[in-house]
Amino acid sequence: MRTSIATVCISGTLEQKMLACARAGFGGVEIFEPDLMVSPLSPEEIRALAARLGLSLDLYQPLRDIEGVDEGTFARNLHRAEAKFKLMNRLGIEVVLLCTNVGTATIDDDDLFARQLRTLGELAAGYGIRIAYEALAWGRFVNTYRHAYRIVELVDHPNVGTCLDSFHILSRGDDPAGISELDPEKIFFVQLADAPVLSMDTLSWSRHYRVFPGEGGFDLTGFMVHLVRSGYDGPVSLEIFNDVFRQSDVERTAVDGLRSLLWLQDRVATAMAGEPTVMELTPLPAGAAPAAVDFAEVRTDEPEAVADMLAHLGFEFRGQHRRKPVQLWVQGGARVIINSQRARDTSPMLSALGMQVADPLLSGERARALKARPVPRHHTADEQALHGVSAPDATEVFFSRVTDKPAWMEEFGLPGHHAHDPDGALITAVDHINLAQPWQAFDESVLFYASTLCLDALPATEVPSPMGLVRSQVMRTADGSVRLALNIVPHASDASATAPHAYPEHIAFSTTDIVAVARRARASGMDFLPVPHNYYEDLAARFEMDPGYLATLEELNLLYDHDEHGDFLHFYTETVGELFLEVVERRGGYDGYGAPNATVRLASQFERNRLRTA
Amino acid sequence: MRTSIATVCISGTLEQKMLACARAGFGGVEIFEPDLMVSPLSPEEIRALAARLGLSLDLYQPLRDIEGVDEGTFARNLHRAEAKFKLMNRLGIEVVLLCTNVGTATIDDDDLFARQLRTLGELAAGYGIRIAYEALAWGRFVNTYRHAYRIVELVDHPNVGTCLDSFHILSRGDDPAGISELDPEKIFFVQLADAPVLSMDTLSWSRHYRVFPGEGGFDLTGFMVHLVRSGYDGPVSLEIFNDVFRQSDVERTAVDGLRSLLWLQDRVATAMAGEPTVMELTPLPAGAAPAAVDFAEVRTDEPEAVADMLAHLGFEFRGQHRRKPVQLWVQGGARVIINSQRARDTSPMLSALGMQVADPLLSGERARALKARPVPRHHTADEQALHGVSAPDATEVFFSRVTDKPAWMEEFGLPGHHAHDPDGALITAVDHINLAQPWQAFDESVLFYASTLCLDALPATEVPSPMGLVRSQVMRTADGSVRLALNIVPHASDASATAPHAYPEHIAFSTTDIVAVARRARASGMDFLPVPHNYYEDLAARFEMDPGYLATLEELNLLYDHDEHGDFLHFYTETVGELFLEVVERRGGYDGYGAPNATVRLASQFERNRLRTA
Repeated sequence: MRTSIATVCISGTLEQKMLACARAGFGGVEIFEPDLMVSPLSPEEIRALAARLGLSLDLYQPLRDIEGVDEGTFARNLHRAEAKFKLMNRLGIEVVLLCTNVGTATIDDDDLFARQLRTLGELAAGYGIRIAYEALAWGRFVNTYRHAYRIVELVDHPNVGTCLDSFHILSRGDDPAGISELDPEKIFFVQLADAPVLSMDTLSWSRHYRVFPGEGGFDLTGFMVHLVRSGYDGPVSLEIFNDVFRQSDVERTAVDGLRSLLWLQDRVATAMAGEPTVMELTPLPAGAAPAAVDFAEVRTDEPEAVADMLAHLGFEFRGQHRRKPVQLWVQGGARVIINSQRARDTSPMLSALGMQVADPLLSGERARALKARPVPRHHTADEQALHGVSAPDATEVFFSRVTDKPAWMEEFGLPGHHAHDPDGALITAVDHINLAQPWQAFDESVLFYASTLCLDALPATEVPSPMGLVRSQVMRTADGSVRLALNIVPHASDASATAPHAYPEHIAFSTTDIVAVARRARASGMDFLPVPHNYYEDLAARFEMDPGYLATLEELNLLYDHDEHGDFLHFYTETVGELFLEVVERRGGYDGYGAPNATVRLASQFERNRLRTA
Repeated sequence: MRTSIATVCISGTLEQKMLACARAGFGGVEIFEPDLMVSPLSPEEIRALAARLGLSLDLYQPLRDIEGVDEGTFARNLHRAEAKFKLMNRLGIEVVLLCTNVGTATIDDDDLFARQLRTLGELAAGYGIRIAYEALAWGRFVNTYRHAYRIVELVDHPNVGTCLDSFHILSRGDDPAGISELDPEKIFFVQLADAPVLSMDTLSWSRHYRVFPGEGGFDLTGFMVHLVRSGYDGPVSLEIFNDVFRQSDVERTAVDGLRSLLWLQDRVATAMAGEPTVMELTPLPAGAAPAAVDFAEVRTDEPEAVADMLAHLGFEFRGQHRRKPVQLWVQGGARVIINSQRARDTSPMLSALGMQVADPLLSGERARALKARPVPRHHTADEQALHGVSAPDATEVFFSRVTDKPAWMEEFGLPGHHAHDPDGALITAVDHINLAQPWQAFDESVLFYASTLCLDALPATEVPSPMGLVRSQVMRTADGSVRLALNIVPHASDASATAPHAYPEHIAFSTTDIVAVARRARASGMDFLPVPHNYYEDLAARFEMDPGYLATLEELNLLYDHDEHGDFLHFYTETVGELFLEVVERRGGYDGYGAPNATVRLASQFERNRLRTA
């Protein structure tokens, strides 16, 4: 598949954009005219730069509102078009995009459109240029791909074909199945965009909210299958108007974009397995959802504070790593590593996650094929090699084999000493892990975890907090064995209290007896996150709860939630650095995360932080 | 008018919110239940805090999805409601909001709604509580204020009335005229929200985009006139769900909110002048749009760089202030002050604007009545007193008398020496001033300039730049004598190049001969902002332009725009610190600001900045 991207998707100067696209690994770019117009580089210099970078210049976008106008206007349009064709010859670009008229068309007549496009095509032919006519969803008279294609057929000129844009087709709810019937010789270009499912006017939706494939709600795999079946073999190009991408780091956004195409190509290859295709589809190394969390790693130069919390929760210290300042704490299937390497002045933070997968090498290869940055970890010849990649929020993700007794645990403690689970292991596993995401990494993170870890994205929710709404996105395996909650924190504000620690991350452990865990922790002197009495009064009003039971909840700072499957009980520890811990008990198939209680938690943490910094 | 605000509008803990509302000057607050639930303060403590702050607790919002349900569900709802009534007694709140059922209602029967509300009202009566029933625009069966009111009439119970919310009425396009016919005794509460005119689903629009009155597109003056005519005299309360307000500084947002009510009250008083009203309407000191820009002030400890630019543009140095390190530069009606007081380590920045108004004292009083923070400036007995206030972006705005020869100019230069305009005054006035706004101050700024300076807000536009989209909002007088462009810069991104100086502000001067100004500046060695050659090639393609004329434009770095009234020519200087200058020539009634060229300007500044910092 030939990958391409419109320069309008990303930030910076045209030169910065082209460099970033080449580095990410795109085959080509579409030049968005305003990017050229404001560039100090001449067309010839841009052409030379592209050649040096190995980028093809696939499309130019200077034409609009050409057809469906009176003859005088059309003559002026031709004058303007010819100037642009000359410019395209200097750039060495052979395909020009022409969107259906949205502004100046006054005559609704397919024959007129065809006649004017034929004249334009004839002019273009003189410059060796081909016109790709695309239906905008809000085109004045032509707004479906079928209609634009019908006009192209009427034109019947070798230099006039169509451009298909997934947004304009799928945003209208049009059926893309007809694409497989189109003559591939008449499809001059294809633009891809995904988008979240929003209910707003299509123009605003298109101009501000498009995202890369896999980051929204459109079925782009289905779209691409129809396209590939048509026999099309040209560029598949990203055209994403997104307010965040336009102001984010250009290199990162370019990688995010290419990842989306590689992921999509793989999905299409899988969907069409066995079917002969003209377009060459390169699959990724096979992926598999993780079976379990192997470990969670906390980095800090103050290991005691974290160790203290773990001990209160009943974790057993399994010793130091035999050659590194790294501790291992275990309870049931939950393993926490406290890493003090390269941790100077680092207060506790979640730094890495281990994921148990069927084939760690293959999962690592897949992640690297998806342009994830590898994280090398040193290991000696007799130690387990860990293969990891860096997630968009800088969390390191490692792949390891599925097992109850990871071999790497042998590197901790005394040689030959095999620890056994203590009898009082009330905690059984990691239930979920909550990662704070910077606001500009949200869509990128969703695609990253979906493509590299094969996690499914649940619908996003919003949690009110004293610092604003926190957007929460759960990514999980179908069986719930691995659950990540990505929390997108509000933009930095000037509210005085949104200081460090306002958005700590956490590890939630599962238990089958939360009262026992809480009592044990309380007895050993652990500090819980306070829960206001008002919360328990509200519980009493909302649920007909036994007063004795309610008193136990309040005594142990336990929070309660309920869904159609069952109950959820949980408590939080105090925050240490950028980290706190949670213990949860799911009863009778409860499948959520206590979202209503997250508001209580965020407010209580805000209050604690305010008192601490006051 | 009794002013109130829902605690959900603003950020922080309940205590912080109440303090901020009291400081801003609100009469009362609505307690949003989640704010209470997460508060460590008991209901009794909250009641005592409100009493100490002089805030009335006007409304509580704990009930939802009560009516239209089967008897078993209704019995549970009553149980829940009674617990909340008890809580309200402890808080000392007498009115409870009940929104029409959106979730659990299954029976569409007005008589059933009325019967259940009557039962609820009877229960509430036992606690001295009144139910304010409000139609949500997306209510399951009841979604108009007329329908909710009809049910209230059916209920016919002294403890059951209605709550009117401007958003739910105006977002549907419902006619609020009927409000004047309602029985004021049955209107228990009124909530006000404005909103930008958006085309999206009402729920999302309501939950994320509401703004304070005067900051959106709704006719709230008309709404209020109908309300006042009904005879209603209860609280008028802000209920604004806004993603930005929820994460912004609580004190500022509270002031912004109160300002909106004071402004609205004034508009209503004006609209109803002479009409007897039950509600007491306090007008503001009379406002008047400024007739001219008196001066623009630049603060810096490097006055030379700014003085140099002004001299190149033909400004005359009128001397130092007789007792302060302040320079005055004049050309035609344009006056620029360079202030080096309190300017240590300050690279040039726009710090203050002088506005000529009919009655400076009255305008100052009005601004202070609108809670604008006064900016005192020292003056000796024989100097002109300047009365100013601080705008949300910290720009200082001063009011002075309308005159061609401001008296304060006498304080500059040698005593007794009266300067005369030089012969070569090609620049005639300040055309417009461009102010960068932090992202969280946008709505606040629009209301500030509209209410204190009586400027009109034009529709906002968006300008693409290498750092993202820049939102641009023109605020101007009807005659165009004063024009401010508020530019909202993209959120701080991690793109490396969005360093300082990425969003400088500027002063644009008007001339009737831009070619002469540019030639004179060029001859004296001035540095212009470069304009890429590609831009001029595009001009040639878009407009049929005389090649000689085009060559002149390019030679002098002039940019060109055109609207249905005429032509626009302008050029920019290089940026010094946070400031650059522009010179514009409007021909034949052109009324815009060269928005298409702002993209060229932003890209060129980005490139210059990148080269400077590379």
